[in-house]
This record gives sequence, C-alpha cells and structure tokens, in this order.
Amino acid sequence: MKRKGLLVVFTGEGKGKTTAALGMVLRAAGHSMDVGVFQFIKGGWKYGELEALRKLPTVEVFQLGKGFIKKSKDIDEDAALVKEGWRKAKKAIQEGKYDMVVLDEINYAFHYGFLKPEEVLEVLQQRPPLIHVIMTGRYAPVEIVEAADLVTEMKMVKHHYRDQDVRAQKGIEF
Amino acid sequence: MKRKGLLVVFTGEGKGKTTAALGMVLRAAGHSMDVGVFQFIKGGWKYGELEALRKLPTVEVFQLGKGFIKKSKDIDEDAALVKEGWRKAKKAIQEGKYDMVVLDEINYAFHYGFLKPEEVLEVLQQRPPLIHVIMTGRYAPVEIVEAADLVTEMKMVKHHYRDQDVRAQKGIEF
Repeated sequence: MKRKGLLVVFTGEGKGKTTAALGMVLRAAGHSMDVGVFQFIKGGWKYGELEALRKLPTVEVFQLGKGFIKKSKDIDEDAALVKEGWRKAKKAIQEGKYDMVVLDEINYAFHYGFLKPEEVLEVLQQRPPLIHVIMTGRYAPVEIVEAADLVTEMKMVKHHYRDQDVRAQKGIEF
Repeated sequence: MKRKGLLVVFTGEGKGKTTAALGMVLRAAGHSMDVGVFQFIKGGWKYGELEALRKLPTVEVFQLGKGFIKKSKDIDEDAALVKEGWRKAKKAIQEGKYDMVVLDEINYAFHYGFLKPEEVLEVLQQRPPLIHVIMTGRYAPVEIVEAADLVTEMKMVKHHYRDQDVRAQKGIEF
C-alpha cells in the first residue's frame, strides 16, 4: 500500500462542500500538517471558521476573492482577482509549502471561465507527490472529476430555506 | 426572518459526512459558541480532528462507541454503549448545555436498531429552541429526514480505493 497526495473534490448543489473541506483542514491540523486555504470567491464574507482557523497554528488562510460573483458589478476585477489568487496558490503548491492545499470555490472560477481546468491540472499533475489538494464548489468540470482521486457530490435532499421563513444561521452557514 | 435551532443531517454513501459536521463545529467555535460532539461509533479510533478540536476552547468531545460495529464481537455491549451515549447527549440537549450538538454516526445506531428514531425525535422536538443539532451517518431514517431542516446526501462519484492501491491517508480519512 502506498502513500500519495490525493486530489479530493467536493461538488454538487447541496450544503457541506466548504464545510467538508474545513473538516479535512481540522484533521490535518490535528496531525500538525501545514495547510494553506485559498478562498477564491468568498473574500468579502466574515466567517466563523476564519476565527477558528486562526487558532490552529499550522493553518494559513488567504482570502482572494470579493464575495459572490452574482452580485458583482465588475466582472473583470473578479477575473483578475481569481487569476492572481491562482498564481499565489500555484506558487505555494510548486514550492511544496503545504502538506494540504484547499482551493475553496475554485470550481466557480472554472464555471465562470476565469481559469481553465487544463492550466490547473498541469500544475497539480507535477506537484510534489505527497501534497493533498482539496477543491470545492458547484459545477466541478469533467476534466477535474476525471483527474481526481476522490469525488463527492453533495446532493440537496432538503433545505430549510425552501420551506420556512428562517434566516441564515450563525454556526451553520457562516 | 426568524432564528431557530436547525436539525441538519449529513447522510449518504459518499465521503464528507463527519468532515462537514466538523466544519460546522469549526464555524461555531469561531463564533465562541459552545459545542458538544458525541461520537456514537468511532470511539476506538485516533483521529487528527480530536487533536485539533482540543485546541478549540468552546468544544467538548465525547467518544462513546468502540469502533466499527461490523468488526464487533459483542453487539450487546455496542448497543449498551450507544444507549448510554444517547442518555448523555439527551441530558446535554435538554439542559441546553451547548449551542450546537453533533450526534456523529447516530444514523448507524438507528440502522442497527440500537436507538429508535422516535425516541430521539421526541427529545429534539422539545429541545431549547436555538440549539442546532447535526446528525451524521449513512442510512438516515425517513423519520429523521422528514423532521430535519437541512439534509445533504453525500453521493460517492469516485473513490481512490476502488481504483488504486492507496492506503488511508493522514489528514484525509483520519
């Protein structure tokens, strides 16, 4: 049985993609592994997990994006931020700076055409062999799914927003 | 828009159920919310996340079970441990000790007949109104899914074990 760095993808429309990635960060941090979390889209948000991640000494978080693209007024700026973010993440991957790299919401960057799956895969395929890479976001491109070692689709079975007048909840959504 | 404690279920055969619950724990901890994690099945295991969770001051973890039931030699002992675990979790819920309670792998306890969905739901329906409850594990019973506010099914799209000779990886599986 061999060890290898895995490419893990959490995709689908259901809740739990970023949360599952965070759970892996927590696991890795528990083993004192160095973890780099690159948030491609959610930069403008204030998440409870950012506070908690700051308490884990081997974890670094980089907020690259500006919030949800749907609400964006400047799509060119969004694209530039994503490309700059990928440049940073790529450098960290190539230098072997972390044992685990989380590319959070990168699938949106593919979906919106800000990044090409091929350019990212080329870097991943040549990365140092023990680095785990976790990708999250809806709409994982087929090339990424094919290259991945582990892919979970989060399927929404039921969502309280659909049926009830309940707002976003602290500790659950943010 | 109102606040309420949510019942969240992560189920399905795919990876990421417990990890998603852990991500929510991390979020809640970031908001200094008190969290109780009750592990119903995995007690015998040594997880990276346990180490990391110990670093979060508002989180308490209780390991109730003895490892995977499939390998068990004493099913009566397993059942007794699960029932005792539920008694503890129930007390903590009723007393409002935590803002968030994770009942990890409790769905297995239903599946194996160690607990009845009705007895758990009765407690949940009468809990203090702002407590979030997260349940994980395959085979979520239909009664639980019906009562839940948010249900995500983790669907396995691809798993590296199936195709490759790769062992369980630190930071990913444990």
